[in-house]
Amino acid sequence: MSIITLLTDFGSRDYFVGAMKGAILSINRHALIIDITHEIPPQDIEAAALPILIECGEQFFVGPDNGIFSWICEREGSSRAIHLTNEVFFRQPVSQTFHGRDIFAPAAAALSTGVAMTEFGEKLSEHVRLDPLMPVVRSDGTVAGRVIHIDRFGNCITNLTSAHFSADQAAAGAKLVINGREISSFRRFFSEGAADRDDLFCLIGSAGFLEIAAHKSSAKTMLNAQRGNVVTLIPNRP
Amino acid sequence: MSIITLLTDFGSRDYFVGAMKGAILSINRHALIIDITHEIPPQDIEAAALPILIECGEQFFVGPDNGIFSWICEREGSSRAIHLTNEVFFRQPVSQTFHGRDIFAPAAAALSTGVAMTEFGEKLSEHVRLDPLMPVVRSDGTVAGRVIHIDRFGNCITNLTSAHFSADQAAAGAKLVINGREISSFRRFFSEGAADRDDLFCLIGSAGFLEIAAHKSSAKTMLNAQRGNVVTLIPNRP
Amino acid sequence: MSIITLLTDFGSRDYFVGAMKGAILSINRHALIIDITHEIPPQDIEAAALPILIECGEQFFVGPDNGIFSWICEREGSSRAIHLTNEVFFRQPVSQTFHGRDIFAPAAAALSTGVAMTEFGEKLSEHVRLDPLMPVVRSDGTVAGRVIHIDRFGNCITNLTSAHFSADQAAAGAKLVINGREISSFRRFFSEGAADRDDLFCLIGSAGFLEIAAHKSSAKTMLNAQRGNVVTLIPNRP
Repeated sequence: MSIITLLTDFGSRDYFVGAMKGAILSINRHALIIDITHEIPPQDIEAAALPILIECGEQFFVGPDNGIFSWICEREGSSRAIHLTNEVFFRQPVSQTFHGRDIFAPAAAALSTGVAMTEFGEKLSEHVRLDPLMPVVRSDGTVAGRVIHIDRFGNCITNLTSAHFSADQAAAGAKLVINGREISSFRRFFSEGAADRDDLFCLIGSAGFLEIAAHKSSAKTMLNAQRGNVVTLIPNRP
Repeated sequence: MSIITLLTDFGSRDYFVGAMKGAILSINRHALIIDITHEIPPQDIEAAALPILIECGEQFFVGPDNGIFSWICEREGSSRAIHLTNEVFFRQPVSQTFHGRDIFAPAAAALSTGVAMTEFGEKLSEHVRLDPLMPVVRSDGTVAGRVIHIDRFGNCITNLTSAHFSADQAAAGAKLVINGREISSFRRFFSEGAADRDDLFCLIGSAGFLEIAAHKSSAKTMLNAQRGNVVTLIPNRP
Repeated sequence: MSIITLLTDFGSRDYFVGAMKGAILSINRHALIIDITHEIPPQDIEAAALPILIECGEQFFVGPDNGIFSWICEREGSSRAIHLTNEVFFRQPVSQTFHGRDIFAPAAAALSTGVAMTEFGEKLSEHVRLDPLMPVVRSDGTVAGRVIHIDRFGNCITNLTSAHFSADQAAAGAKLVINGREISSFRRFFSEGAADRDDLFCLIGSAGFLEIAAHKSSAKTMLNAQRGNVVTLIPNRP
């Protein structure tokens, strides 16, 4: 039994997600389908002309060639890409407005039944890449990161990791700057040393990235933060 | 393994959907349950005294006799209806406020185990019908349709289809009128010819219905549209 | 096949729920996972230092020791509790901010494969208890209950039951008082005797608790009600 996960901007009000699941199950009744989220902001990323299939990190990724897979490829180092063109694997007729149901879902289902990746189309030497996830280390030693996600609780997840900022460095005087505000407090978990309720602090989140958070409050609101905001790490001077 | 899909107005905050799934799984542990949506607006459709079971288009439909199945029956042409009265198939005690858990879910689960439709109650010669889905062709050649759904993206789905309005007709001068605004642009997909970003256009959506959309904007907002709004098709004059 | 249900405050926008399901399926590929809700208000209940495992009513409950299981234990009478400390069953490395993925989900998955409860840690003689669910019967015969939940429809679910208030008692003059307003109407179901559309009434809800509702309107809005509001039952005087 294969696991197929879904990540879309379809929301939960309409029939879109159910239609994708129906398309999958009509091909592989034993696929196990797990929703990651369908709440990606609508049209948050550019539409793409090409549907692609990528193999990377022992998983397959099927979707539009708009860069959504590029950070995974960046992290894993190596990847293979195919241009999804073999209409044998499409749901017919293909709606021009619902590739999720008619191209992506059937391709994922076919992969889950063991169809070889090379059956789906020609190899692609290039696919769209977003700006790299890795933060930039400047010549003065500061590190320029950014907010890559803001979660339900208002925590601002950055592209910095424990390699850039640790409790030891914070204790020695290093600090983060975001939207004109300095943050020098570092915690291991949300409720550690929670005397100052509204103070901003940072911690290493569950996906390994440095997050800016506030105890029982929203860091997003306190910082007026948005995805993409620059986060500068100023190291302690020896 | 049978697939049971759920479509409710229960939302995702409460325990209602989980309770329905529990009722199903206690009868058929191998049923595959797929959520279509639980975000139907609360009490959007009248409550109904009778629970019914309909067979139509090689599927069973279980729910209140308030007309929610009538467009499917209209499309498929033939259907059979049963008045759900056999308490053997109810979850006891039957709550007066949660027929979804105590009547509909157990009936669907029993059907999925192979119980014959006729076991559930007496045949119904009539059941509640909503106004027909088909638009009305007027004597002057115009077609009176309406908005039947507005999706997450603000696209206004009408009850018109490609049989009523096509790219060729649009090119020849036909147009739609909704809320005092004329729409004569016709696209095959959302991003086709996307120079004029905020212009309204129409296209055939993924379920076969004519939609009114706006590139990277909400047609609903631009038109101040609501479900039920009249959409008039004015054909090109030869 | 075991059923594992999930109840969290993670919402549906982020990757948290998917990560928990992945953690479960990596241990028991055949577990059947059912979402109850992920819309518990964020940080609605205090964080807890200890993760616990409780057996109660022929089910296992895994989570923080903050009292969320105490009403179940109160209802069932007997329960057994374990302090979840055996790191053999944790997902490594354990994130300090995501015990759901790294402790609770793997423990539930291990239980679903048949691991004995006593393997997970030492017995706990005590665990955190919330204020009891049972309403208080005062010496003057009135009963002091409270609103324990407000559902999607605005119905205010109380901790009173049919043992406290029934249609017969209402007919004899008993009434509820909440936020300065008296409610003496009692219905069996939402649309019963629905002449006075906006009138407040009460009924026994699907989980056995007395609810305050309004026909096609929100009792929450009409009463300006919040969870925790006192609901006083004034019995009829003989």
